[in-house]
Amino acid sequence: MPNPTAAMLVIGDEILSGRTRDANMHYLAGQLTERGIDLKEVRVVSDDAPAIVAAVKALSSGFDQVFTSGGIGPTHDDITADCIAAAFGTHIDVRDDARALLQAHYDRSGQELNAARLRMARIPDGAALIDNPVSIAPGFTLGNVHVMAGVPTVFKAMLASILPTLTGGAPLLSRTLRLMKGEGDIAGPLALFAQEHPDLSVGSYPFQKDGIYGSNVVVRGSDATQLDKAMTALAAKFP
Amino acid sequence: MPNPTAAMLVIGDEILSGRTRDANMHYLAGQLTERGIDLKEVRVVSDDAPAIVAAVKALSSGFDQVFTSGGIGPTHDDITADCIAAAFGTHIDVRDDARALLQAHYDRSGQELNAARLRMARIPDGAALIDNPVSIAPGFTLGNVHVMAGVPTVFKAMLASILPTLTGGAPLLSRTLRLMKGEGDIAGPLALFAQEHPDLSVGSYPFQKDGIYGSNVVVRGSDATQLDKAMTALAAKFP
Repeated sequence: MPNPTAAMLVIGDEILSGRTRDANMHYLAGQLTERGIDLKEVRVVSDDAPAIVAAVKALSSGFDQVFTSGGIGPTHDDITADCIAAAFGTHIDVRDDARALLQAHYDRSGQELNAARLRMARIPDGAALIDNPVSIAPGFTLGNVHVMAGVPTVFKAMLASILPTLTGGAPLLSRTLRLMKGEGDIAGPLALFAQEHPDLSVGSYPFQKDGIYGSNVVVRGSDATQLDKAMTALAAKFP
Repeated sequence: MPNPTAAMLVIGDEILSGRTRDANMHYLAGQLTERGIDLKEVRVVSDDAPAIVAAVKALSSGFDQVFTSGGIGPTHDDITADCIAAAFGTHIDVRDDARALLQAHYDRSGQELNAARLRMARIPDGAALIDNPVSIAPGFTLGNVHVMAGVPTVFKAMLASILPTLTGGAPLLSRTLRLMKGEGDIAGPLALFAQEHPDLSVGSYPFQKDGIYGSNVVVRGSDATQLDKAMTALAAKFP
């Protein structure tokens, strides 16, 4: 059975303007690979409602799971929750369960749950809340879309609470053969190797060290025994 | 006149598996912002021909300029050039101008221009070559799509040679007001400020330092005088 597929949607002008360097994509990619969920596509869009809605619709219908980051804070540019609701044609308003979480939190810290903060309790009907142990304001899951914060510490914490609930596949294992030869010198035998192992994914990544061109050949698959056998065959091609 | 728009397509399994952290998106974003070209969307797809072709078609028709990175080396998993040709319905083969560049390079270094390396001379009909001062194998521009290498040093060098040829707009300037208040405390007045300045883009980015919540308010626009006046008005809202 093939592994479940996933896509990610990163939402935020600050990434596209170059102000902030996204960190969540790389983290999510590693976490999904470990669990045998294949991340197939990532999109980054700005804080623009039509762009967000269109991307959510496309990714939600194209992949088993969708993970979003960004745009769920209290300020006017935080429009993700409303866009997710629009993409699913679902009603959205301040929800009692989310409001109760925020009320308790701000009561404890002696701050006011004002209108802006209350925006963070806007949750679409039918969505399940995602726990936020860092700063309380919850994310949510609607359909196959998991809506999380863009702040990396919060994104990680939210992801940790939903990953165990998802069905994974066979974790993708990888083996690397490091060759001190340029890609142009190994490409012929490597293409043959890839043809001989149609069940494995074979990638080549060039590097340069002390003026010498080298290649890391990365072979990926879910069966450790098959992978080890293949690596022996690969090494024999480059004595 | 609105600024020209741009999109980026990052191609490579190694990014989506979490093996490699992409660096080119952040670099391109900064370079385009400086030149007044608005990066509106980024997509990351795997080394999969249908996914690459579909993304190229969508981005090429949706934005003024498209920048791709990755998949133009000599190995079997380097399929970008052929996918670009397919997306445009254009013939592709080894082209004499690109072959001559490679032949001269490998003659100088005493290496063989073998079949694998010759794959890097596959250029679609009608495309203009993009100079590669780092490792010679050229990128190319076809229509509004600029096809570049994924290796960051090569990506940067290729981008440097094409950016001066593109029509930019008014560079997007930004000013930041750093407030030691959480987003929930500033969101109300900030939304009002954004409404009062419809020509400016107003974003808020939370941070935490020594247990204190703060917010960086970033205001962007292309008119320095207008921007400075707006920042004075913004500061007055948060005495």
